[in-house]
Amino acid sequence: MTFETVSTNTAFGGVQGVYKHHSTATGTDMTFSVYVPPHAAGAKLPVVWYLSGLTCTHANVTEKGEFRRACSELGLIFVAPDTSPRGEGVPDDPDGAYDFGLGAGFYVNALVEPFAEHYRMRGYIESELPRLVAEHFPVDMERQGIMGHSMGGHGALTLSLRDPGKYKATSAFAPIVSPLNCPWGEKALGGYLGPDRETWAEYDACALIAAGARLPDLLVDQGEADNFLTDQLKTHLLVEACEAAGQKATIRMQPGYDHSYYFISTFMADHLEWHAARLKA
Amino acid sequence: MTFETVSTNTAFGGVQGVYKHHSTATGTDMTFSVYVPPHAAGAKLPVVWYLSGLTCTHANVTEKGEFRRACSELGLIFVAPDTSPRGEGVPDDPDGAYDFGLGAGFYVNALVEPFAEHYRMRGYIESELPRLVAEHFPVDMERQGIMGHSMGGHGALTLSLRDPGKYKATSAFAPIVSPLNCPWGEKALGGYLGPDRETWAEYDACALIAAGARLPDLLVDQGEADNFLTDQLKTHLLVEACEAAGQKATIRMQPGYDHSYYFISTFMADHLEWHAARLKA
Repeated sequence: MTFETVSTNTAFGGVQGVYKHHSTATGTDMTFSVYVPPHAAGAKLPVVWYLSGLTCTHANVTEKGEFRRACSELGLIFVAPDTSPRGEGVPDDPDGAYDFGLGAGFYVNALVEPFAEHYRMRGYIESELPRLVAEHFPVDMERQGIMGHSMGGHGALTLSLRDPGKYKATSAFAPIVSPLNCPWGEKALGGYLGPDRETWAEYDACALIAAGARLPDLLVDQGEADNFLTDQLKTHLLVEACEAAGQKATIRMQPGYDHSYYFISTFMADHLEWHAARLKA
Repeated sequence: MTFETVSTNTAFGGVQGVYKHHSTATGTDMTFSVYVPPHAAGAKLPVVWYLSGLTCTHANVTEKGEFRRACSELGLIFVAPDTSPRGEGVPDDPDGAYDFGLGAGFYVNALVEPFAEHYRMRGYIESELPRLVAEHFPVDMERQGIMGHSMGGHGALTLSLRDPGKYKATSAFAPIVSPLNCPWGEKALGGYLGPDRETWAEYDACALIAAGARLPDLLVDQGEADNFLTDQLKTHLLVEACEAAGQKATIRMQPGYDHSYYFISTFMADHLEWHAARLKA
């Protein structure tokens, strides 16, 4: 397995790195970032996976997420993958739209050509990247948490709900809670999976909860001034799904906050403390 | 005086805004950012000016500086101006180099044509922008601090040393401490001020200290892995100037840190706490 260091920078006593490798899951080169906080030699640290939203690469949260101070203080490794395959031969949205194709992998394994060959972000995040990270960084794979923003919040919730116990902590900023019930989700799941909505259900947090998937608890922050709240994110569907199923959840509506990294960075330390409490127990 | 709101985002309980106005100092439109933390109605808050380095606009520190958490906790307003005039008719480096012209105003009032018309960042930061900010934001102009990075560290040190008492706190990240003695400085001061090095001295922190300028104290952090340390920044010249003059100074060499915002963001909260202690007294 190839593995290349793109850059490293000292930050908050640890090392913020960017790395590249050839992915067998996507058949492309993939870039991701890892922050390793200061730690004792030989120590194995808990790891938090951060899945980004539409249009993002690893760089957005790495530059704007303000996670390093908290990770340094709490002793957490923070991994930020890309949001889609990229490069020569990777098909994009036919109209170049931001919400499908490049930057919009939706954390699925595509079933429909021409996307099925490369758009395999589910497998990449579930299996290949964790193996690679475990090989190269001092992570304790028994102590993994997962979080994400928007499309990445959808990714975090669905990856965790499909595999209860794998992630000891699950949280999201402004997640797409039900792709079955919003334009972004219908376009992405229809485009990657085809018209049979039966195949979509494993990529819908609300549907997974309704079908019986359970986590010990979950944390969601959602800005009330988020332009996408009404039409795309529909937080109330997650509130209702959790209430109907008895799924413990802390879902906080935050007055004044929008969909940006100004919102994410404000609540990042809260989320990391919440993860640390569950990963260090 | 024109004044236009470009954007506002809620962050850490306050408001991160970006604003634009027509500057009479530079004869151009200028963009700057202001973070106003949560505060009581009618309160006047201390303000910290942050001057950015070569190639930067207001956006770099606004996105990557990680200052909002500390400003929110400490009750500080944080203002980040641009680093040069920009727009139609503003002359740039003839070769398009990054270290002169656009993005490289060096916080001087230029004396040499074609730069003298627009390159008046000293007057802009000293007089015009403070008046505008005082008019539009809840700042207590008796409690101002100033900090900056690299070229902006040079700006912060020289603006403060030229006007002792105006700024109650002065700090810098990886400042250019002596433009008289480094290639960046010689190019900029020669280009903006002309060959008479007598006119340069008021733009050189070390020369100002040697000539008798004094501050109560100052704080500098400098990364030891900074690629520009040896040839451009020459921190030791500031250490020597302060020692020779009896100027109180805390100048910290930070092992492993480079010149990037990974370095700045690591020590930003430290600096803001240092400013707050002096601005709140």
